[in-house]
Amino acid sequence: MNNFTFHRPTEFIFGKDTELQSGKMLKKYGAKKVLIHYGTGSVVKSGLLQKVEDTIKAEGITYIKLGGAVPNPVDSLVYEGIELCKKEGVDFILAVGGGSAIDSAKAIAIGAVYDGDFWDFYDNKAVSEKAIPLATVLTIPAAGSEVSNSSVITKMSNPPLKRGLNTDTTRPVFSLMNPELNYTLPPFQTACGVADMMSHIFERYFTNTKGVRLIDEMSEAVLRTVIKYAPIAIKEPNNYEARANLTWAGMLAHDDSLGVGREQDWGSHLLEHELSAMYNVAHGAGLATVFPAWMLYVYKQDMDRFARWAVKVWGVECKGNKEETALAGIQALKDFWSSIGLPITFEQLGAKKEDIPAIVDVLKLNTGGSFSSFMKLNMEDAAKIYNLAV
Amino acid sequence: MNNFTFHRPTEFIFGKDTELQSGKMLKKYGAKKVLIHYGTGSVVKSGLLQKVEDTIKAEGITYIKLGGAVPNPVDSLVYEGIELCKKEGVDFILAVGGGSAIDSAKAIAIGAVYDGDFWDFYDNKAVSEKAIPLATVLTIPAAGSEVSNSSVITKMSNPPLKRGLNTDTTRPVFSLMNPELNYTLPPFQTACGVADMMSHIFERYFTNTKGVRLIDEMSEAVLRTVIKYAPIAIKEPNNYEARANLTWAGMLAHDDSLGVGREQDWGSHLLEHELSAMYNVAHGAGLATVFPAWMLYVYKQDMDRFARWAVKVWGVECKGNKEETALAGIQALKDFWSSIGLPITFEQLGAKKEDIPAIVDVLKLNTGGSFSSFMKLNMEDAAKIYNLAV
Repeated sequence: MNNFTFHRPTEFIFGKDTELQSGKMLKKYGAKKVLIHYGTGSVVKSGLLQKVEDTIKAEGITYIKLGGAVPNPVDSLVYEGIELCKKEGVDFILAVGGGSAIDSAKAIAIGAVYDGDFWDFYDNKAVSEKAIPLATVLTIPAAGSEVSNSSVITKMSNPPLKRGLNTDTTRPVFSLMNPELNYTLPPFQTACGVADMMSHIFERYFTNTKGVRLIDEMSEAVLRTVIKYAPIAIKEPNNYEARANLTWAGMLAHDDSLGVGREQDWGSHLLEHELSAMYNVAHGAGLATVFPAWMLYVYKQDMDRFARWAVKVWGVECKGNKEETALAGIQALKDFWSSIGLPITFEQLGAKKEDIPAIVDVLKLNTGGSFSSFMKLNMEDAAKIYNLAV
Repeated sequence: MNNFTFHRPTEFIFGKDTELQSGKMLKKYGAKKVLIHYGTGSVVKSGLLQKVEDTIKAEGITYIKLGGAVPNPVDSLVYEGIELCKKEGVDFILAVGGGSAIDSAKAIAIGAVYDGDFWDFYDNKAVSEKAIPLATVLTIPAAGSEVSNSSVITKMSNPPLKRGLNTDTTRPVFSLMNPELNYTLPPFQTACGVADMMSHIFERYFTNTKGVRLIDEMSEAVLRTVIKYAPIAIKEPNNYEARANLTWAGMLAHDDSLGVGREQDWGSHLLEHELSAMYNVAHGAGLATVFPAWMLYVYKQDMDRFARWAVKVWGVECKGNKEETALAGIQALKDFWSSIGLPITFEQLGAKKEDIPAIVDVLKLNTGGSFSSFMKLNMEDAAKIYNLAV
């Protein structure tokens, strides 16, 4: 087990009706002028935004609103948000939505207290030292952005550049998590969230670090739970038990409690970012396509680990032959993701084999030509993995 | 799953040599005048205290010291610490030790900023609203006090009163956790720590709340890991992997991540407190004696739950008959605790059957006559449970 630091100061208020605590919690944390940041309208239609606003008004806190965060959130709205925060003297940002709204809010939060271009942070040209404090009302369990210090923004250049940033300055101060808000999620979006949270665990589980049994056991526990409840949530959208277990699992998948003490990979996320940047597909869908291909490319690196995963997570019967067991696990993952409606091939995703060279070119731009840690990968490896997903 | 709040702002620095960050971390959190609080000398003999002091001096922070915290820490030293803090203008407390030193430090931390008697807080006559900030250098994985908002203090009245307090004002600001510091723990103390952390999970696992599968799975994962590594740590005291997994498990067992969303019990802790108060035995040893007896008394309340626990945690083969399965699990627990040298009967613990009426009298004083939640218990039940442990 490696040395590590673990610090998760976010306060979670979890359960039914917790969105109604928005105003109270903002007051607790000293907010005076709030920017409410949200997506493309579902929180307006559902009435959630109005409810949140009412609780803020009730506390006598003033606020402004900025909607429009899209899946794979883009730089243009971030610039608009930064402008607005500076002009209006915003001292707290409340993101109402899923990972896109929250990530967009995080970029605004660091950009609004910085004199230069916020993209500097995503381009590794500056290090974030402060941010406007930020909180969330979570509507989609998936990205884990309600707890993480991560955000991913797409710069709409040609080609579009999708870049992630980790900085503790943007870790949410509090997050309100009402699983009932997920009842209206369409099945495909629920499934994409499931792929996202499972992938967050996989990126940490497939490691070369030894002696992290506790974290292995916990990771397998969360994965089994997600696998149990995902089909239920899709079949019975209003099943509170399923939604609640998935919502908390999405947080645990990315608060890094399942990643401490070990080297992490994150190669599949980098491989995926190029797909969602180029085709504007859902991140979870891209992960469902890329991850099994990555696994097929790297499993020989540690057959024991893949075989253990197959047995503990997928209930694969140990086949005596480690390789068969490992491959049965990867097949079980593909079958599971297919069964909940996720794409697992380029064709199903809407990506094209002939684009692979161009995709790899952008990947090179974003990674410098090599990436990943479980098995070090270069651009040739990347092309082979994309081809395995075709 | 019930609604819940989860807020764990403690910063953990985990791994080899992390005690050397004491000074740096105190500086980060603004300490100027520190009280170092510790136990009965092992941290002096081992040289740990000197190492910690050196790092504090190196940062130019001034400090004073108060040793003497005993297992089942007592009120007299707390009064001494409070006096010292007031006199010396202490603005930060660093506990170096296990649960006893940390609990004692917590009581000092709230007492030093209160005009009345600190016991008011443990006697439910006052609510803690502030405390001197406090941090820990953990030497024994057991109590979870390095993360919890709990402390237990014994008032040396006649009879002695052992009382617990939960208040977020005493949650450690940071905790330095170096598993190597556990290498010198005697086998019995290691085993007591194991019983303590397992009990912290049991108190949360045996619940009437439904729909908390995620937390069940995680609890079982942590328990299996503790069961795997406890005998290794006892046999090979310098096994880093075993010590590291146990150290982090001890924190997880009591940061409440395995308790969220469900009603918790804590009856066995109350039953145990009377034993360690009367016989001054180690808390973990008392728990090892009381918990199986409690289980035998209550398991019919939810046979499914006990049977699941037997299968998932102890690898008991499902016997078709739930009751047999449940009982086999309880027997497996007794066998395991015996195998690592823990007492599981009154005689082994050094308690006496004829004292039971007197023990129950004090329990009545401390609980008001009824307690527990998985199965509501009164004083008659308590006497029966103690008798089952005879």
